Amino acid sequence: MLVAPRVVVAAFALLAVSNAMPQGVVTQRILSLTAARTIAEAALAECTSRGFRTSVAVVDRSGNLLVVLRHELAHPATLEMARSKAYTAVVFRGSTAEFQAATANDPARLPQRDVPGILALGGGVPLYSAGEIIGAVASSGSNQTTDDECAKAGAAKGASLLE
Amino acid sequence: MLVAPRVVVAAFALLAVSNAMPQGVVTQRILSLTAARTIAEAALAECTSRGFRTSVAVVDRSGNLLVVLRHELAHPATLEMARSKAYTAVVFRGSTAEFQAATANDPARLPQRDVPGILALGGGVPLYSAGEIIGAVASSGSNQTTDDECAKAGAAKGASLLE
Amino acid sequence: MLVAPRVVVAAFALLAVSNAMPQGVVTQRILSLTAARTIAEAALAECTSRGFRTSVAVVDRSGNLLVVLRHELAHPATLEMARSKAYTAVVFRGSTAEFQAATANDPARLPQRDVPGILALGGGVPLYSAGEIIGAVASSGSNQTTDDECAKAGAAKGASLLE
Amino acid sequence: MLVAPRVVVAAFALLAVSNAMPQGVVTQRILSLTAARTIAEAALAECTSRGFRTSVAVVDRSGNLLVVLRHELAHPATLEMARSKAYTAVVFRGSTAEFQAATANDPARLPQRDVPGILALGGGVPLYSAGEIIGAVASSGSNQTTDDECAKAGAAKGASLLE
Amino acid sequence: MLVAPRVVVAAFALLAVSNAMPQGVVTQRILSLTAARTIAEAALAECTSRGFRTSVAVVDRSGNLLVVLRHELAHPATLEMARSKAYTAVVFRGSTAEFQAATANDPARLPQRDVPGILALGGGVPLYSAGEIIGAVASSGSNQTTDDECAKAGAAKGASLLE
Amino acid sequence: MLVAPRVVVAAFALLAVSNAMPQGVVTQRILSLTAARTIAEAALAECTSRGFRTSVAVVDRSGNLLVVLRHELAHPATLEMARSKAYTAVVFRGSTAEFQAATANDPARLPQRDVPGILALGGGVPLYSAGEIIGAVASSGSNQTTDDECAKAGAAKGASLLE
Amino acid sequence: MLVAPRVVVAAFALLAVSNAMPQGVVTQRILSLTAARTIAEAALAECTSRGFRTSVAVVDRSGNLLVVLRHELAHPATLEMARSKAYTAVVFRGSTAEFQAATANDPARLPQRDVPGILALGGGVPLYSAGEIIGAVASSGSNQTTDDECAKAGAAKGASLLE
Amino acid sequence: MLVAPRVVVAAFALLAVSNAMPQGVVTQRILSLTAARTIAEAALAECTSRGFRTSVAVVDRSGNLLVVLRHELAHPATLEMARSKAYTAVVFRGSTAEFQAATANDPARLPQRDVPGILALGGGVPLYSAGEIIGAVASSGSNQTTDDECAKAGAAKGASLLE
Repeated sequence: MLVAPRVVVAAFALLAVSNAMPQGVVTQRILSLTAARTIAEAALAECTSRGFRTSVAVVDRSGNLLVVLRHELAHPATLEMARSKAYTAVVFRGSTAEFQAATANDPARLPQRDVPGILALGGGVPLYSAGEIIGAVASSGSNQTTDDECAKAGAAKGASLLE
Repeated sequence: MLVAPRVVVAAFALLAVSNAMPQGVVTQRILSLTAARTIAEAALAECTSRGFRTSVAVVDRSGNLLVVLRHELAHPATLEMARSKAYTAVVFRGSTAEFQAATANDPARLPQRDVPGILALGGGVPLYSAGEIIGAVASSGSNQTTDDECAKAGAAKGASLLE
Repeated sequence: MLVAPRVVVAAFALLAVSNAMPQGVVTQRILSLTAARTIAEAALAECTSRGFRTSVAVVDRSGNLLVVLRHELAHPATLEMARSKAYTAVVFRGSTAEFQAATANDPARLPQRDVPGILALGGGVPLYSAGEIIGAVASSGSNQTTDDECAKAGAAKGASLLE
Repeated sequence: MLVAPRVVVAAFALLAVSNAMPQGVVTQRILSLTAARTIAEAALAECTSRGFRTSVAVVDRSGNLLVVLRHELAHPATLEMARSKAYTAVVFRGSTAEFQAATANDPARLPQRDVPGILALGGGVPLYSAGEIIGAVASSGSNQTTDDECAKAGAAKGASLLE
Repeated sequence: MLVAPRVVVAAFALLAVSNAMPQGVVTQRILSLTAARTIAEAALAECTSRGFRTSVAVVDRSGNLLVVLRHELAHPATLEMARSKAYTAVVFRGSTAEFQAATANDPARLPQRDVPGILALGGGVPLYSAGEIIGAVASSGSNQTTDDECAKAGAAKGASLLE
Repeated sequence: MLVAPRVVVAAFALLAVSNAMPQGVVTQRILSLTAARTIAEAALAECTSRGFRTSVAVVDRSGNLLVVLRHELAHPATLEMARSKAYTAVVFRGSTAEFQAATANDPARLPQRDVPGILALGGGVPLYSAGEIIGAVASSGSNQTTDDECAKAGAAKGASLLE
Repeated sequence: MLVAPRVVVAAFALLAVSNAMPQGVVTQRILSLTAARTIAEAALAECTSRGFRTSVAVVDRSGNLLVVLRHELAHPATLEMARSKAYTAVVFRGSTAEFQAATANDPARLPQRDVPGILALGGGVPLYSAGEIIGAVASSGSNQTTDDECAKAGAAKGASLLE
Repeated sequence: MLVAPRVVVAAFALLAVSNAMPQGVVTQRILSLTAARTIAEAALAECTSRGFRTSVAVVDRSGNLLVVLRHELAHPATLEMARSKAYTAVVFRGSTAEFQAATANDPARLPQRDVPGILALGGGVPLYSAGEIIGAVASSGSNQTTDDECAKAGAAKGASLLE
């Protein structure tokens, strides 16, 4: 579900005033590479410290890659899985673990898994700034519980940079 | 270069008078861009008025796009979802909400979801003219119930133009 | 299709009056399967009579297949080539032999060959009804000169059905 | 250019006499275009006689198209569905109605539906010659029961040509 | 070539100060749907006024569609061409007419035409706000010179909304 | 699940010492073509001896093909299925029969079947060297139980070459 | 394939008599796996003896793979190139070195390189039986001259099995 | 050209002796993530220091991604271009600037640009260890000369880690 948070609207209104934006343009917060790299490295380090060889991906709010890191002994498919999980977290606005549960339990949502590029495997989590989702981080190559925790470790590391 | 043959003009004039169709040709009603635009805007306005940032798509009877409108803060994936829902409504000749229910409840119809381009998510509805389906409108980016209502609002707005 | 709209508008206006068309709908002539089959068989027969084993394809005005016939000893790739040639004839509104020459001689048109689904090989010709292109027929599997002649033989056979 | 080697002729003549196959070659029965066309037309006629506008496809033993016929008012997606059903009947060696039932009832076979190009919808039936599957015919555009019967009508029509 | 204009850098510096952005986030101007619609309609109207039936596409700075409008008698391929032209204008940061000339005349740039999604046909122009490219508009279905002029008419109409 | 076996770590440590590897490089055991060919032929022979016409594929640790053998009367789709099964065995680190069972019984793992290139059909088994998976062999074209046994016959034949 | 049909018809008629073929079926010579394997190994051995690490592919008359062998240190892309070369040799009925020269020198044939799956690189050669092309062998991974010679060595080795 | 350097053969011989490798296994040097990250960051830093916003990609010897870094204001297409350049450098064993020149000047090599995934734009350079190519680094988003220099700066930084 893609709800319109009221706070954001207010924020944009203010922004529009203070910067004298032209009428046909709005401004948007986007995730910097610097933050994305910090987040990716923290996610990877968490998995490495637990003995896993994984891939990590960070995407921007459109779902496009900013950073990918793959351990040399992690299968290339883990990189594509990480990318898909991060994309899923951005498109369906929540962690992929939540998306998996929600789509498994609701027949009306199950076909969301058929949208191209979507992957209902735990390990992807959204990244927030001022209440908005501005990207996502995902881990792949361990197991879904651990991948979720690694991604959350990455997101936690990045939180102070984004708020 | 795709130039405009002058002969056509005269031919159409004649056609209008006689309507004597050659043996190997049939005529078909098709949805105009003007109507498609009206329908798309009404569908989008309905969702906007409820606080959602959505994408809307209108396709012709072959399932080809005529109009797409995406709110600048709706994810690009919502546009592709709207397109797929509209295509589904045309191919399986009914709303995608109905298609979802029908395929969920009938194991013989479930594999219809595997046809390329099909998406079993509510929010797509067919457009009728003289009892025929001549296109479809779909909304994506709110939730399935709302998307269905937005698409229906679009179709309702267009009904007087099509009948 | 790119016709001079002013007079056409008049024609359509007449049409709209005589048929009482709703405002948001226009009518379109489309190629019937019966005519398409006649055309395909004539094109194939022409190539067969010259000693070639070929594939023939007929598409409608959107470029979608109506008929395909492939000789059992013609390579399956000839079928895909025939399909692409017919599609090209519809999209660029002329024979593929003409398209080949035009794009080879004009650097500004050369990139038209990069449009997905386009193939600049002779053997595809448009089908006209009342001055409009309503489809195309294409042959593949002999040589380009012969394929062009086979397709034209098909189109000639169909002409009386379409005018 | 795809020229016609004269040598072939003599070779075939010899072949007919001796049939002494070289060690590295085997012979295979393949479906002729003539038979495929007869089968396709019978399948289409059956559906037409029941009031449906359908597409029909006939493929060879490799699953490559020999014939396609689409009613001008049948959606282009029906053609692709017919093609996929015929392909499925050849690959999994039985009617698609049987394939649907078998894969629905056996969890070990369910993932066969995930093979690219496969479609578990009724309407495709294999074509036999001397006990071997040498192709398939499929119908799409009515409903699965009727499509299955139309395809079977096509196969029945062709049986005398293939045995 | 994707140069970093100095003015923009200064602008971002100012912006960062006045809004107290978190360290890992930058702000970005994005094209609104409202402006995109105005631009698309102006581009389409220009082509219509000259007697052409065309498609128009407007994309955001990532190259994702915001608006598509296709005349009901323009071939669906024109829509995909418009989309590709707009994408090309954003990726290679200039009009597609310029891109065509630059890549034709410089062997080192010619392979840029091989990048997926790129189309070197005139008719796509970038949209600027405060010196930055924030999207593009493209027309397809007339001829390249006219399509370029139609797109420019759209961009001109939008200029006051974006600066 | 992609765990890091302790033995391997020790082995790498030793290797690093004895060969004085540069800091940024690690060494990896890879399957030779010679071994892959022996394994493929044994797998094929097992199926042939049981009266089946099958395809066999052997992939390296990245999932790239080293050997394919297809019986001339096995459908080309069996080759693609064998390839996908071998790829699946490498990516999910176990036989595809086990993968099928594991994903069928665990809703959290079911979406692993949606990863591109994955096929949950029995007949693929991993190949080990010194405790590491260095490739996989797969059979397709008989039935899943037999395909699994043929692949295992291949792997067994290769074991002495890999340990 | 484009042979002069009249005499062939006679040949087939004879064949039909001697084998009592049903009317709707023709017979076709196809390449056996045994021969394909011999050919592939000879092609690979030739390249190996010259110090190259290559991939070799053998396809049947439809262009479908029968055998692939890739040296473990040859890049996976060489396998796909070998596959494409062999496919090209079958579709355009000659060696890929000849195809390269013919398409480079004839503007009318140049667009044949745009057919999907075609690759105009030397190293693919057709395989003949009784004057017919029944498959192709291709090498990739050395240089085009050598690849052509390796493929020819393979074809030469197989000749006695096919005639 | 993919030649077999004699030095490598000697190296492998030694390696095989000292580690008592099983007969069916060979060892291979692969690029570590640690080195890949160092190389990627150096390449990006070089471009940043010159005022460009770019993407950088590092791939392993199979052409699979190890690291991607994209500046938040570089277009997502630059990431895909960097990936393709790095892949090209590995497959055709040299810098993409050299590949561009070589394919432009030799009609026999020009079709190498048609291999899927290949991109003939400067900015990709191979990474060597002990005379072998074990990966590649590529930059995209500035201009081809600068991208080439950025990639070389990355490779230079990594050299001490790889030799």
